[in-house]
Amino acid sequence: MEEKFDFTVEQLGECKVPSPIELSKEHGDFRANYVKDTSFVRYKVNVFDADSTENERTKGNLMQKAGPREFIYFNPAHVNAGICTCGGLCPGLNDVIRAVVRCLWYRYGVKRIRGFRYGFKGFFPESNYDTIELTPKVVDDIHKNGGTFLGTSRGGGNRVADIVDAVESLSINMLFIVGGDGTQRGALDIAREVEKRGLKVAVVGIPKTVDNDLLFIDRSFGFETAVEKAREAVNAIHMEAESQINGIGVVKLMGRESGFIATSTALASHETNFCLIPEVPFDMDGPNGFLAHLEKRLEKRGHAVIIVAEGAGQEHLQSTNETDASGNKKLSDIGVFLCNKINEYFANKHIHVNLKYVDPSYQVRSAVTTANDSVYCERLGNNAVHAAMAGKTKCVVGLVHDKYVIIPTEMVTRKRNTVDPEGALWRDALDATGQPILMVNNIQSVIEHMKKTAEEEEKKAQAKSK
Amino acid sequence: MEEKFDFTVEQLGECKVPSPIELSKEHGDFRANYVKDTSFVRYKVNVFDADSTENERTKGNLMQKAGPREFIYFNPAHVNAGICTCGGLCPGLNDVIRAVVRCLWYRYGVKRIRGFRYGFKGFFPESNYDTIELTPKVVDDIHKNGGTFLGTSRGGGNRVADIVDAVESLSINMLFIVGGDGTQRGALDIAREVEKRGLKVAVVGIPKTVDNDLLFIDRSFGFETAVEKAREAVNAIHMEAESQINGIGVVKLMGRESGFIATSTALASHETNFCLIPEVPFDMDGPNGFLAHLEKRLEKRGHAVIIVAEGAGQEHLQSTNETDASGNKKLSDIGVFLCNKINEYFANKHIHVNLKYVDPSYQVRSAVTTANDSVYCERLGNNAVHAAMAGKTKCVVGLVHDKYVIIPTEMVTRKRNTVDPEGALWRDALDATGQPILMVNNIQSVIEHMKKTAEEEEKKAQAKSK
Amino acid sequence: MEEKFDFTVEQLGECKVPSPIELSKEHGDFRANYVKDTSFVRYKVNVFDADSTENERTKGNLMQKAGPREFIYFNPAHVNAGICTCGGLCPGLNDVIRAVVRCLWYRYGVKRIRGFRYGFKGFFPESNYDTIELTPKVVDDIHKNGGTFLGTSRGGGNRVADIVDAVESLSINMLFIVGGDGTQRGALDIAREVEKRGLKVAVVGIPKTVDNDLLFIDRSFGFETAVEKAREAVNAIHMEAESQINGIGVVKLMGRESGFIATSTALASHETNFCLIPEVPFDMDGPNGFLAHLEKRLEKRGHAVIIVAEGAGQEHLQSTNETDASGNKKLSDIGVFLCNKINEYFANKHIHVNLKYVDPSYQVRSAVTTANDSVYCERLGNNAVHAAMAGKTKCVVGLVHDKYVIIPTEMVTRKRNTVDPEGALWRDALDATGQPILMVNNIQSVIEHMKKTAEEEEKKAQAKSK
Amino acid sequence: MEEKFDFTVEQLGECKVPSPIELSKEHGDFRANYVKDTSFVRYKVNVFDADSTENERTKGNLMQKAGPREFIYFNPAHVNAGICTCGGLCPGLNDVIRAVVRCLWYRYGVKRIRGFRYGFKGFFPESNYDTIELTPKVVDDIHKNGGTFLGTSRGGGNRVADIVDAVESLSINMLFIVGGDGTQRGALDIAREVEKRGLKVAVVGIPKTVDNDLLFIDRSFGFETAVEKAREAVNAIHMEAESQINGIGVVKLMGRESGFIATSTALASHETNFCLIPEVPFDMDGPNGFLAHLEKRLEKRGHAVIIVAEGAGQEHLQSTNETDASGNKKLSDIGVFLCNKINEYFANKHIHVNLKYVDPSYQVRSAVTTANDSVYCERLGNNAVHAAMAGKTKCVVGLVHDKYVIIPTEMVTRKRNTVDPEGALWRDALDATGQPILMVNNIQSVIEHMKKTAEEEEKKAQAKSK
Repeated sequence: MEEKFDFTVEQLGECKVPSPIELSKEHGDFRANYVKDTSFVRYKVNVFDADSTENERTKGNLMQKAGPREFIYFNPAHVNAGICTCGGLCPGLNDVIRAVVRCLWYRYGVKRIRGFRYGFKGFFPESNYDTIELTPKVVDDIHKNGGTFLGTSRGGGNRVADIVDAVESLSINMLFIVGGDGTQRGALDIAREVEKRGLKVAVVGIPKTVDNDLLFIDRSFGFETAVEKAREAVNAIHMEAESQINGIGVVKLMGRESGFIATSTALASHETNFCLIPEVPFDMDGPNGFLAHLEKRLEKRGHAVIIVAEGAGQEHLQSTNETDASGNKKLSDIGVFLCNKINEYFANKHIHVNLKYVDPSYQVRSAVTTANDSVYCERLGNNAVHAAMAGKTKCVVGLVHDKYVIIPTEMVTRKRNTVDPEGALWRDALDATGQPILMVNNIQSVIEHMKKTAEEEEKKAQAKSK
Repeated sequence: MEEKFDFTVEQLGECKVPSPIELSKEHGDFRANYVKDTSFVRYKVNVFDADSTENERTKGNLMQKAGPREFIYFNPAHVNAGICTCGGLCPGLNDVIRAVVRCLWYRYGVKRIRGFRYGFKGFFPESNYDTIELTPKVVDDIHKNGGTFLGTSRGGGNRVADIVDAVESLSINMLFIVGGDGTQRGALDIAREVEKRGLKVAVVGIPKTVDNDLLFIDRSFGFETAVEKAREAVNAIHMEAESQINGIGVVKLMGRESGFIATSTALASHETNFCLIPEVPFDMDGPNGFLAHLEKRLEKRGHAVIIVAEGAGQEHLQSTNETDASGNKKLSDIGVFLCNKINEYFANKHIHVNLKYVDPSYQVRSAVTTANDSVYCERLGNNAVHAAMAGKTKCVVGLVHDKYVIIPTEMVTRKRNTVDPEGALWRDALDATGQPILMVNNIQSVIEHMKKTAEEEEKKAQAKSK
Repeated sequence: MEEKFDFTVEQLGECKVPSPIELSKEHGDFRANYVKDTSFVRYKVNVFDADSTENERTKGNLMQKAGPREFIYFNPAHVNAGICTCGGLCPGLNDVIRAVVRCLWYRYGVKRIRGFRYGFKGFFPESNYDTIELTPKVVDDIHKNGGTFLGTSRGGGNRVADIVDAVESLSINMLFIVGGDGTQRGALDIAREVEKRGLKVAVVGIPKTVDNDLLFIDRSFGFETAVEKAREAVNAIHMEAESQINGIGVVKLMGRESGFIATSTALASHETNFCLIPEVPFDMDGPNGFLAHLEKRLEKRGHAVIIVAEGAGQEHLQSTNETDASGNKKLSDIGVFLCNKINEYFANKHIHVNLKYVDPSYQVRSAVTTANDSVYCERLGNNAVHAAMAGKTKCVVGLVHDKYVIIPTEMVTRKRNTVDPEGALWRDALDATGQPILMVNNIQSVIEHMKKTAEEEEKKAQAKSK
Repeated sequence: MEEKFDFTVEQLGECKVPSPIELSKEHGDFRANYVKDTSFVRYKVNVFDADSTENERTKGNLMQKAGPREFIYFNPAHVNAGICTCGGLCPGLNDVIRAVVRCLWYRYGVKRIRGFRYGFKGFFPESNYDTIELTPKVVDDIHKNGGTFLGTSRGGGNRVADIVDAVESLSINMLFIVGGDGTQRGALDIAREVEKRGLKVAVVGIPKTVDNDLLFIDRSFGFETAVEKAREAVNAIHMEAESQINGIGVVKLMGRESGFIATSTALASHETNFCLIPEVPFDMDGPNGFLAHLEKRLEKRGHAVIIVAEGAGQEHLQSTNETDASGNKKLSDIGVFLCNKINEYFANKHIHVNLKYVDPSYQVRSAVTTANDSVYCERLGNNAVHAAMAGKTKCVVGLVHDKYVIIPTEMVTRKRNTVDPEGALWRDALDATGQPILMVNNIQSVIEHMKKTAEEEEKKAQAKSK
């Protein structure tokens, strides 16, 4: 079944102001050009049958390209910009803040830029609008640190009235919101409330998710850095495992609903023997269960390295049904659970094992960006500014097929992206780990269980997007 | 004008051997699937006008997906594989070798794998066929080193008869050739000679170019690592420049005909003020020349950092018309030339400057891969093996729109990819450096000069591909 | 009271074999010289009163210098060397193994070198003498990995008879034992048993303790690398703490009885506000307790970073009196305890804090050595070989006042070195953290308690050394 | 012949002001203590004959310990401190600046601290006293960058009158001068001029020499970091050399008169085959010359890695007798000379070699400190402040036998420290490289030549110190 996409980006009004950025309108003169609103990137590139009609071009498949426009919506002299970072840490937050500030300041001449501190809390009256004035000088070196210069906090996106009150009373007309899907849904609500009040405020999101679980885009900023750091932890635990008789190393990595970090780290480390992710079910016990395969591995090679994503194997744990301040379901700790299971299993068999467990999440989240991620953040920040100056709103910027595009926030927050267990990434990870294609004893019952779970998730997603 | 592409991949014969890799043929069972020959990736994704017909799907726009096939051409028991690395060093060579060996051995059960030493030299009779037997144990740790475990050398691809003699006398029926465009053209000649002799040898290339100047593909392996290391050198020279009165730091980076490393490093470093690349002409003197702008920068900020790609500004140097062993034109040294020009200019103006120059190329080329590059090499190697086992030949593997594909060697060696001076990457680099959009006094004459050069290049390219 | 030291090194017999290493016996000819047994390093260098007699030179204060002798005890052709690594991981183990093997092989021409696997287990009959033949080729690249190439395990040093049986039946006459103080005591027992049986076996230790708690020596190998990696963890947690309102970061570092890693990391990170070590008692509660000072810090700066050594504050925890396989007392987990205490304290005060906790120990222990540590390991390994070839035994090699020396094992295992709370290192750490000089409410009672503990420790130490 | 040392530190006057730093005066109370002026470290620890009288304690052998005194000379409220950094870059400059500022501010309550920009130039009237006010906030993050936050320049130390005019007119009474031996001689002249004018200004040096060629002290700050970075360059060039047939890698490292960096890097890299330093003469040609040995190495192993210190082999080059702005003799470029010689030699023999040359000096000098170096800088900075507050002058702080001491500037600037060709460090480097003990054909003539050179140097040194 073909999904219908509508990638049309909303606009505050007509663009009549000539851009202060001097670019060329001609081609062939070696000078960089403006981008037109009619430049698109085709989203779907997979073609399963070259002669089928389902591959036809459809407008719904086109994403608007990001970049500086010849005419913009806002007069730079009247712009009063705000920026905030929300949710958990992720590599690159400071790079993004810096890029937004510098592009506004140097390229458009905007001099009123305000950073809201500690996520949405900076908008709340009880914080007395905790903001900081941002200039190129203030942000010049912040990309050399991890974390976020502005501070962050979870939740608060539901206090829409308070936030828009702040926007009004501070005369903000351009808002950059860096955060995950929950935050971007909050940003959408803010944009709608702003509209309802008849204000002209561009609300542009820069989607942040270290888990890389954002729909449509190639990868989220900070993801590559996260894999770089996660690989270090796996290499360390591999050394521990290999140095002991029956050494077992377990590394828990981030990934609540998607196993991108775990899978990529398994591929990058070249030393991982099992990778457990939320998308691929596994049995603990039984002849085709994880523990039996782990035992075989130990017999054959004397040590084993396991990566487990934090959201993997939740079916084995008692769910708590609690949520954290960001509204994410609280997960039971699969890392500790797995370690206990492993120790128990081998104790029962009187096999001495030497298990080491690490959870490097904080070191991963707070890392300074790799060069490639740093380039990405710089370009994302610049393109967010170009979008906002052109009056785009209710949208986020992202990378699709290596091109920078603008995507309606509603589209990207519909649901989360996941590793396709039948796709190329996971298949290559199986190649790399050598683990069985599926560690499940009764496939049919698992398929039914997973389908049911997926349907429930879909219902929730639809409820959310209403 | 629309270019016509033919991405049809050649095949040695029909695939009748069931693959020893057990994958699923069904969808929805959480088990990784085989890839069909009828799975494609659409290459062109830029759409300039949603209603125009030029965006229509055309078969010529489709690239075949890489991955394991259900049926393969070679019986693994009869495979006798060879692999060699050619040309200059590039991060990731060992990762690629390792992946090819491990995929052949563990996934397909191929046990006869031979590494040819020092590029094509290992095929020459005078080296007594200098080869090394490759097993997973031999290659297990090689990815932790830079360089190439097999050794490399330049040139030799023109000794086609000798090479195919070696292939015959060693009974090689599968050849993996890691190298740049010159090497891949050699590989194509080898494949053609092999065909002429009626042999069934799959010749699969893994394209290597640290400059990232390969047509069609998203990026070449090792490129991200190169930028990571190049950024370190720029950061160092920035410290030198900033610590002195009128400190000027010049970093020469690789890039004979394309400025990808220079441009990406400028974006990644956040400290670069001028980036000079082969694709963008610049005047040295005159009111809109580079030296005048450098002087302005010094006046304003007291220091400056310059990145120059090795192929930039060749129009200012006397060409030697010599070529190196790889057949590349010998370039005059723009780094040293630039430093002399700068020192001369300021000496004439009696302005004391403090110039520091570094050329970190060897440190960049020989680096160990970043995590993301390491994943890329692993997957490239695996997919090269899958392609060869399925009897694909005269082709290379690559990444297009984040999907692994197989591309005919003839297509990718037609010419080199370059930074589009009017595209998004260079525009964003201008944002990052703040340098003028074009440092040229008389644009028209430059356009004509560059057009003429391009036409000459095109003629040479056509001559080459014949 | 002046401690009496006897640094006399035992010797298997007279050195009559000319060394195969060609060095100079003259001075002033620019050629490196042999070291004489009469070359010493003065151990005590602190002088509290220039005129006092207690500073007089005493022979007991002199340590014998390490290095190649002109005449050696063993005929290289008859040497049959063994090496093993025991206890927990520590950066540099592979560097040391590599240096020992290469020095034996290349400098002395010894070709029979055997690595015992998994600590003392490789000597046990039930492992069938699990050993591996060591050559320069085998160890050539091992220093690029952390961990130990030979494997390790805890304990087993008490099975002296079994171990010496192995030494006899494998005709080992030179034994290099890399391990902590427990292991070195085992090595001493082995040397005594060897002597009792009338064998001529040189037993030379290379002391390993990542905690840097070895008596007399400047620092233990791997220590600097450990601080390098620990600093990374502290920097990460600092980012987490600083990015949140009332963010608190807690890092637990190694250091069972000594706070060297914690103290040096606090100095190196420049971001630590409290450093808690075993040597310095602290109260949790009360007006001058840790929690009250933490609250003050949060009031003033909004975030705090705490380093806690694993052996700190044991007085607050219920002791278990259990020991691990190495015979070390099992410590209750101060990290988790501290986090609970902090959360409880602020919850009671209705202050919202955001606490993050990391324990990077495995990443720290398994790191690859820094350049300086790598030099140290290389030189330690070489000097261990020089000592053994000269027939030294019951000794370890170490660095004292930047000179390599040989110290009797009995001396260095008497007790563990600790951070002097009244010395320069800790004083400088107080400067760096800005924490109170002592977080204790009733100093007198603490002094008495600590004295009592120290006396008990001393008694145990005397019991051990008997 | 026994050298006579006088390590007596000069003092501006009696210390009567109670220190604002609260430390303990008792021992045994777990609280850090003040340091007394009568605490010393014995400098000479080498004992060649335990019974000889030349090992007797002599007062001249004692260095005063650094650290906070109970009573200080300056009233903190009246302190007006200045700090400058001079000469070439070196890792750790920012760490030192930061430590000085923070110790003055937080520990002593000094609030008037001025950074002089660009070395001594900030003191010159034509720069209008180019200074910057320093506070903990200003310096908080500077240690995360290499280079020097204050800027630097060479020379200028001879304009003593101008500098002391600046000191007077800005009312500076405490001067911290970070720089090499030339700079410290300048500092001494400044202190003498200050004294002549009857001013009470403490002039305390923090000796900076990336070459590690400072007399008496264990190592100079930044040295370990330099070796860390230099090792990276050697590893890179090793990859290049190993990947080619007859690959030769040459790395030029810093070290004008001493080969500490080159020697330590050779030990740290484990991949170096020849290390050439200024202290060890070598012949280029002849049967025992460097080129003949290089050829043997290539025959045996097919590749070679060479480290050459910039001051090595100057006897082979035509001396220019010019000096740079710091007064250092301009060296001819041994790196380029060596490469030419090698290429010529093998060209004559019709042996094809593949030579790669790198000079990573700028990357080495501008690196961010390793953890251990960072600790060292922090403690050096603090101890410089403690010394100055106590009225010490004409002195530098340093590390001797792992203890922080105060040494008269006159002593440390007498001459430069060098690698002893007959000492342990160089001997261990020979072990590591496997190079011949001396690559010289006629030893006697070399000894005479070197003696003559040394005598000339000594004469110059005596001239300097007058």
